[in-house]
Amino acid sequence: MAAELTAHELIAKHRPTLDQALEAIRTRAYWSPHPEHPKAYGEHGSLDAAAGKAAFDALLGTRLDLGQPGTDDWVGDEVSPYGIELEVTYPHADIEVLLPAMKAGQRAWRDAGPEVRAVVCVEILKRISDRTHEFAHAVMHTSGQAFMMAFQAGGPHAQDRGLEAVAYAYAEQVRTPGTAEWTKPQGKREPLALTKRFTPVPRGIGLVIGCNTFPTWNGYPGLFASLATGNAVLVKPHPRAVLPLALTVQVARGVLTEAGFDPNLVALAAERPDEGTAKTLATHPEIRIVDYTGSTSFGDWLEAHARQAQVYTEKAGVNTVIVHSTDDYRGMLSNLAFSLSLYSGQMCTTPQNLLIPRDGIRTDQGHKSFDEVTADLARAVDGLLGDDARANALLGAIVNPDVKARLEAAAGLGEVALASREISNPEFPGAVVRTPVIVKLDGAKPDDEAAYMSECFGPVSFAVALDSATDAVELLRHTVHEKGAMTVGAYTTDPEVERAIEEVCLEEAAQLSLNLTGGVYVNQTAAFSDFHGSGGNPAANAALCDGAFVASRFRVVEVRREA
Amino acid sequence: MAAELTAHELIAKHRPTLDQALEAIRTRAYWSPHPEHPKAYGEHGSLDAAAGKAAFDALLGTRLDLGQPGTDDWVGDEVSPYGIELEVTYPHADIEVLLPAMKAGQRAWRDAGPEVRAVVCVEILKRISDRTHEFAHAVMHTSGQAFMMAFQAGGPHAQDRGLEAVAYAYAEQVRTPGTAEWTKPQGKREPLALTKRFTPVPRGIGLVIGCNTFPTWNGYPGLFASLATGNAVLVKPHPRAVLPLALTVQVARGVLTEAGFDPNLVALAAERPDEGTAKTLATHPEIRIVDYTGSTSFGDWLEAHARQAQVYTEKAGVNTVIVHSTDDYRGMLSNLAFSLSLYSGQMCTTPQNLLIPRDGIRTDQGHKSFDEVTADLARAVDGLLGDDARANALLGAIVNPDVKARLEAAAGLGEVALASREISNPEFPGAVVRTPVIVKLDGAKPDDEAAYMSECFGPVSFAVALDSATDAVELLRHTVHEKGAMTVGAYTTDPEVERAIEEVCLEEAAQLSLNLTGGVYVNQTAAFSDFHGSGGNPAANAALCDGAFVASRFRVVEVRREA
Repeated sequence: MAAELTAHELIAKHRPTLDQALEAIRTRAYWSPHPEHPKAYGEHGSLDAAAGKAAFDALLGTRLDLGQPGTDDWVGDEVSPYGIELEVTYPHADIEVLLPAMKAGQRAWRDAGPEVRAVVCVEILKRISDRTHEFAHAVMHTSGQAFMMAFQAGGPHAQDRGLEAVAYAYAEQVRTPGTAEWTKPQGKREPLALTKRFTPVPRGIGLVIGCNTFPTWNGYPGLFASLATGNAVLVKPHPRAVLPLALTVQVARGVLTEAGFDPNLVALAAERPDEGTAKTLATHPEIRIVDYTGSTSFGDWLEAHARQAQVYTEKAGVNTVIVHSTDDYRGMLSNLAFSLSLYSGQMCTTPQNLLIPRDGIRTDQGHKSFDEVTADLARAVDGLLGDDARANALLGAIVNPDVKARLEAAAGLGEVALASREISNPEFPGAVVRTPVIVKLDGAKPDDEAAYMSECFGPVSFAVALDSATDAVELLRHTVHEKGAMTVGAYTTDPEVERAIEEVCLEEAAQLSLNLTGGVYVNQTAAFSDFHGSGGNPAANAALCDGAFVASRFRVVEVRREA
Repeated sequence: MAAELTAHELIAKHRPTLDQALEAIRTRAYWSPHPEHPKAYGEHGSLDAAAGKAAFDALLGTRLDLGQPGTDDWVGDEVSPYGIELEVTYPHADIEVLLPAMKAGQRAWRDAGPEVRAVVCVEILKRISDRTHEFAHAVMHTSGQAFMMAFQAGGPHAQDRGLEAVAYAYAEQVRTPGTAEWTKPQGKREPLALTKRFTPVPRGIGLVIGCNTFPTWNGYPGLFASLATGNAVLVKPHPRAVLPLALTVQVARGVLTEAGFDPNLVALAAERPDEGTAKTLATHPEIRIVDYTGSTSFGDWLEAHARQAQVYTEKAGVNTVIVHSTDDYRGMLSNLAFSLSLYSGQMCTTPQNLLIPRDGIRTDQGHKSFDEVTADLARAVDGLLGDDARANALLGAIVNPDVKARLEAAAGLGEVALASREISNPEFPGAVVRTPVIVKLDGAKPDDEAAYMSECFGPVSFAVALDSATDAVELLRHTVHEKGAMTVGAYTTDPEVERAIEEVCLEEAAQLSLNLTGGVYVNQTAAFSDFHGSGGNPAANAALCDGAFVASRFRVVEVRREA
């Protein structure tokens, strides 16, 4: 088939972006090709705010026909956390038809080589980027994120994470040259001489199991890492967050077709309610890679059972912030208040346990008792969320009834330092919007341990009183070791305490943010620079993104012959 | 403690070697810093042949005290396949004492950083290299390899594989810079600025489970990959091949001590007969990495059960050579004869199934029928091994009674094209030396399938008659897919057949040697250039050596703070 997009054109168009991405992962300095500001869109073929909204609206109530083989039904019943029913239906796949069809195009995709695969991936990301406004609404109305967050985290930041994975995948594949001449001296005899060809070959079909809260941000790294390394990719979205990934699959299939490849290299596996497709797929012999974001229990299940596959999990942990001392008390409070509030704490990176000395902390505002710190933090959150419009823009909506139930139950776990309150959303009256709750617990009370040692996903934090900095550091170690952590934060002006916290993070492999008081938050990581997770503690077995995340997605086959 | 070897000295001494190794894995051209010729040793502190032999002799009947903590007994009852009892005893460890002691030095080893760890590893390899003659006898008298092979494969080639792992480990760890300054523009506002520090941290303790046949060659990659990435390494040698790895551990402990590190970063776990230590160790919570070479059944057990660890296995496969056509019939026969004879076929890379068209092959010597090919190959093996001295030098000794039993049983599986014969070894009358057997089987007979589809480790090959090249290619595919293969060979002058074979190897991830007729053999791979195994078929889940072999042995911890 004649490709509308030639390899040559794609390389000319996207090689500079790939090169910049390769440089960024090497220096880990700031870089992104994807604008964060909504107003940056609308030119050069990208949709502006109005066009993006219109495109999203036009999707509602439609059947998203991806043209996939083996489609035996149409499924989908997404209801936005903001209350609207999307009424979009998606292809339901007969897996025994779809999977073989996905393999048909793998040889050509493999033979295209790392560079062509990379620029095809960059083209997919570019087209997604152009539709960022449309994707933003899709992410908002599946995850419950507020619009601005859905726009940024679901758009440019997710695209960055996808491109980062493409860069790692490309770099890893070209570490071994395509060919080598090997000449071994044999003293006075003729040297031995071989010509060797090295080809990166895919494992097979990669499965991406999407999550409800960050369908694109958490889905793109695995999707693009597997695709760029020559694998076909089957995307099994969360049943409540299908649309953003279905659109992604649609874009990918379009680009693959135009570039002369088989569109079935990327496909969607939407499911009926309670169908539990993920287990069946993850253990299917044709599935050789699994990327998963979600609950610890199912992540552990995958690691134990999907033995025919390389399994990359991002599960959940109990994130800790040690509050020991600070020279910017106001900055600390406002930074923490934002971290606890953003997307109603529904991030795997949101702090849960705030470890505070029972006898208070030293600050630039003088000594603050445990009660003062918690009261001041409560006030900071209240201040941040005092205006309903601002609160809605920060909190988004509660994504599902389980989160709401946990939030409501949390108030019974201890003394409430900050009560959660209901916020109304004038634009979306159906949205469940709640401010965070902060509950005081005592680190010395065995009864309280069950609460702070369990992950309580949602807008719930515990201010845990501890006898000393040493106790806090030890509880940090125990928590990361037993429960894992996606993030650790700490505030301290004491070099000894700082060193002790760092040492725990190095020993337990947790990512540490120290003394953040400005516009960077412990729960946010930037692609190309920050690692998301470490892969070294129970919260995740992989990090976004490093060599380990891509190196096992392909193998290198050598063919050697005498020169 | 004051180090006798400073980091500065080690870097000055070994950085050039490391740089050359890094260049070699990038170009995959021929390179080795370790001389292959026995006469190259004896100067600059290395032991010559006589000194090496004397050093080995002096070890016999001694207790090899490594100074390890938790030593509760002395064990060892190695009997050389050449008949002599080594009577060397080794420390038996109380694991609950030894493992904690191994962790004590990890922090300093981690803080030393990738470069210092790399040059310490190079120093260990250098000292092993200086004692290559001594190690050669140790390898010979545990594996049963003939001296020259024990010298080369157990000496320089093993050291090359160790250095290759060090190079990959170093490269992987320095892909992420030690620090980064991240500055994100904020329009008219002050940019966000963070200082980030990235530290490679080890997983914990790596376990190396050694094999009987190639204790150093197969042991060094995992040992050095884990050590260079900051882990402590516990070496559990095969009970019949302890000495080469015990000496390795001794050297490593000496270098670590001199360089100011804790010697317990490397330790030995010798075991009593039938103690089955490997299972206990491999599932111990402190063991976070396992490197294993050996039987498929135990390799599969490890992959299933050592879930707390990263598990790298090299198991076994059924290696195939397709004999389709050749323009160098004599070269082909002599190359194959050597491959089948070397170390009595006791290599995981030795060809087992020779797939030959039932109606013969085209050659530069005219058409050769199936029977002519097998008879000519039998003659070539006979010619190669006709002289007893040469036969002993090539065959070495049968490593254990199981191999001998399989060899004897093989003659009953079909028509014998080449009978095995007994060779006497005048120097070591106790050695069991046997020439290879070649048995004819019919690819169309279901009864024969059980034989050629099972791994028959040892000097046993099957000449399998097939109806067509297509059938041979399909049997190759089926064999690699179901049983795995460390190597595939093929002889063909037909570009179509060649393409079909290559395609199978790419699809099933098998390493292919084409038309080898000279001094390179399908069962040999060269470090820095050839991959040993692919990690993509059932014979092994890892390749020696690539990024995937090292990338998951450490994690990167980031500490970030406002700039």
